Amino acid sequence: MKGLKDVSRRGFLRILMAVVACVLAFPPLVAQAAGKTAKYVFYFIGDGMAFTQRMAAENYKGEKLMMNKLPAQGMATTYAANRFITGSAAAGTALACGHKTNIGVIGLTPDGKRLETIAELAKKDGKKIGIITSTSIDHATPAAFYAHVPKRSHYYDIAIQLAESNFDYFAGGGFKDPNNKKKNSKHYVGNAIEYIKNHGYRIITSKEEFENLRKGDEKVVVINPRLQPGKSLPYTIDQTKQDITLAEFLKKGIELLDNPNGFFIMLEGGKIDWACHANDGTTAIQDTLAFDDAIKVAYDFYRRHPDETLIVVTADHETGGLALGFAGTKYSTNFAVLHAQDMSYQRFTDEIVKKLKRKGNVTFEDVKPLITKYFGLKFEGLSTDPLVLKPYEVAQLKVAFMDSMNNAKGKKDPYKYLLYGGYEPLTVTITHILNHHAGMGWTSYKHTGVPVPTSAVGVGAEMFNGFYDNTDIAKKLMKAMGYAPVVHYAENAAYTYAN
Amino acid sequence: MKGLKDVSRRGFLRILMAVVACVLAFPPLVAQAAGKTAKYVFYFIGDGMAFTQRMAAENYKGEKLMMNKLPAQGMATTYAANRFITGSAAAGTALACGHKTNIGVIGLTPDGKRLETIAELAKKDGKKIGIITSTSIDHATPAAFYAHVPKRSHYYDIAIQLAESNFDYFAGGGFKDPNNKKKNSKHYVGNAIEYIKNHGYRIITSKEEFENLRKGDEKVVVINPRLQPGKSLPYTIDQTKQDITLAEFLKKGIELLDNPNGFFIMLEGGKIDWACHANDGTTAIQDTLAFDDAIKVAYDFYRRHPDETLIVVTADHETGGLALGFAGTKYSTNFAVLHAQDMSYQRFTDEIVKKLKRKGNVTFEDVKPLITKYFGLKFEGLSTDPLVLKPYEVAQLKVAFMDSMNNAKGKKDPYKYLLYGGYEPLTVTITHILNHHAGMGWTSYKHTGVPVPTSAVGVGAEMFNGFYDNTDIAKKLMKAMGYAPVVHYAENAAYTYAN
Repeated sequence: MKGLKDVSRRGFLRILMAVVACVLAFPPLVAQAAGKTAKYVFYFIGDGMAFTQRMAAENYKGEKLMMNKLPAQGMATTYAANRFITGSAAAGTALACGHKTNIGVIGLTPDGKRLETIAELAKKDGKKIGIITSTSIDHATPAAFYAHVPKRSHYYDIAIQLAESNFDYFAGGGFKDPNNKKKNSKHYVGNAIEYIKNHGYRIITSKEEFENLRKGDEKVVVINPRLQPGKSLPYTIDQTKQDITLAEFLKKGIELLDNPNGFFIMLEGGKIDWACHANDGTTAIQDTLAFDDAIKVAYDFYRRHPDETLIVVTADHETGGLALGFAGTKYSTNFAVLHAQDMSYQRFTDEIVKKLKRKGNVTFEDVKPLITKYFGLKFEGLSTDPLVLKPYEVAQLKVAFMDSMNNAKGKKDPYKYLLYGGYEPLTVTITHILNHHAGMGWTSYKHTGVPVPTSAVGVGAEMFNGFYDNTDIAKKLMKAMGYAPVVHYAENAAYTYAN
Repeated sequence: MKGLKDVSRRGFLRILMAVVACVLAFPPLVAQAAGKTAKYVFYFIGDGMAFTQRMAAENYKGEKLMMNKLPAQGMATTYAANRFITGSAAAGTALACGHKTNIGVIGLTPDGKRLETIAELAKKDGKKIGIITSTSIDHATPAAFYAHVPKRSHYYDIAIQLAESNFDYFAGGGFKDPNNKKKNSKHYVGNAIEYIKNHGYRIITSKEEFENLRKGDEKVVVINPRLQPGKSLPYTIDQTKQDITLAEFLKKGIELLDNPNGFFIMLEGGKIDWACHANDGTTAIQDTLAFDDAIKVAYDFYRRHPDETLIVVTADHETGGLALGFAGTKYSTNFAVLHAQDMSYQRFTDEIVKKLKRKGNVTFEDVKPLITKYFGLKFEGLSTDPLVLKPYEVAQLKVAFMDSMNNAKGKKDPYKYLLYGGYEPLTVTITHILNHHAGMGWTSYKHTGVPVPTSAVGVGAEMFNGFYDNTDIAKKLMKAMGYAPVVHYAENAAYTYAN
């Protein structure tokens, strides 16, 4: 018996040694098998940013994007429960909760059940939560992480739910309907910003105050000092030193949220989408580069905490049907011409075209120098100059100028809609033409149904290789964070402010 | 001393046991580390087939494509050595040899060094080689696996090099210049088809003969009995029972090439690209589905030989700047309308429009019923009917009809080129409009610079996850097949027929 015991003891030792040898031979594999989870999670969502948006930005800058260099790269289908081409609310819900829902719905199933978002799971788990966006902070994508409303336009309810989320750091644009002017909420409880303050938040609207925030400053809502329409951050191309960049918002977020339980930060490049809706390539590219700069901030953090950090970069959908290649330029591209653009379609429309309209009695000759000044397009010069307009383009600009002066945006005329998409005719014709000279073409003013790229690095990143659905992204994240990779329903499905 | 020896012997035993335990715990990992290579390799190249082409086909059919279901999914950049937007010759060379080259060059570096293709490496390794395509067999993509010429248009030289390749099975379309009529070759050695026969090949041009081929029939060139322009296989939408499908070509290839040393088969869906150049969505989709049917044949083989087979599916580039979403349809798509199309743009141009032109004295009224008959578009009906034309679309068709009658294809007029891309004005306007009704838009008649999806299953498939360059695809394949994953140069860099 002693012999047998000896053998079995030796056998046990050998197995133990084998396990040790395995651990030494395959540390990452075994570490993961042993249930190592991501303590620090960065979830980047480039709204409207698919393959072409990434490649356009890469070509414009002339160097590889951080997101394109991450070791894990996959792609995801994006369709909504009730439409092939999705919207930001349904896609945001899929990315935050792992469940398909209908167009316009946030944080609820198509039949109204309340879902639990990955940020809510992380909060319950003791992590600090940050939500950063370049749109208004109550916009569909950020809202999908803390709100549950049947319609994305219920901005008042969303703001109220922000207050009740108890999340730690909100940053970006402002609030769209803090006084329930649109009467979407049946449960008015007073001004939403006051309500947020009453829930213990500081609202910060100056850059100095923002810069002075320090670790220990908890429950903060930072609104950029200057806002563009839709209570959004100015486009990167329009930003000045007064503005706070996405990278700066993230750096501060890391400083405030870093704690022994870890954090979950969602950062949205939200106006890539808006610029693509307007078919303004340069503006979309510069916002994509600013988004990538924020990813670099996260990557620096990852390098300091490689065994505890996960970075995931994805998109909710593509916008604009952008192609890198245009009929008029055949096989050639020339992204350098985009550098001639000086401001976004938004600023040109608001600050130049509207002024001309108010002034009245303006001719196309008056406008030509402005087109050259702000977009670089030239009415004279050698045909080899890539910025010189072709005769048919000048004709298109003339028609668009007249349509702008006559307010014929084409929202009701299907042919004019094809030309302008409801945007300012002169502006959108200028960006179309400049983009065409670069070799970029657009097919839509809306979202499209192409799959979106997903990139990842860190704990569990390898799960993000492959081709999957956008709901799987949330589930993979849950798995990486140690939560059951399933759809989570809220315990208390009834909710005060959602009807 | 004895004690020490005992300890070290026991230590050795423990390490041995540890290794055994590791092998038991992680069999696939260790098997791969031990150098398991792919014996049977299928390399599928969908010419012009990127994410949107795949998704369009998937939506048209209403079920997931085989290629989209493969477990490994990645993406690849496609640029050429001297242009951002690549062409099939440079891309084919990258995919076959792992080396960037200039536009139009096949199997050579930009400075003219002769590269060794993965098919040539496999041949030297004792594998049987099959080259299948829906284009002419001397077209850029198939040629990139067996030929080395400074210009893709040197079809005579390519055919001569086909004969000298000693590869085992060629199948698809015909030869474009077997008599060197274009005078591209400085080394005329007689009719290329005779030259091929003299090198021991059987040339098969009837379906019956093809079907009667049996294992042991070696060195065969199969040319489909019916050819469309460019000596190509008819488009899938135009095929009849007389034609041989890509799936049938592959099934036969497997039968002929299966042997103890394994095989390497490259199969190109070559006319997906041509249909996308012409902006004909239905035709591109049906060719994509036929290509996917061939992948299913390979997958059946893989299921029988899972430990020895590798399937890789990729593309050389995107064509047409296809988007799933069009300005006119906003967020809606309706792929069902594409089912109304009855023939390719090619057949409609060749069999209908050309006949009308020859006849002369034809009015737009005469053409309307033909548009309805072959493309389903209706000139009358409820506006809710997705096939009923909008007034501005009827106007576009009228202009296009006149331009067709006047032969104003717009090859020299830049504005007409934007409208028609050099294609038959009436035909391309019809496919544009039908595609728009489906929610598909095009931005170019040429290739674009979007990355292409790559899918894989089998031995070494996991290497194809991620985001890499098209040259890496060849190197990953080499690695999976047990060859050094580097650029291979031919031993004899001088070559008789390449100048």
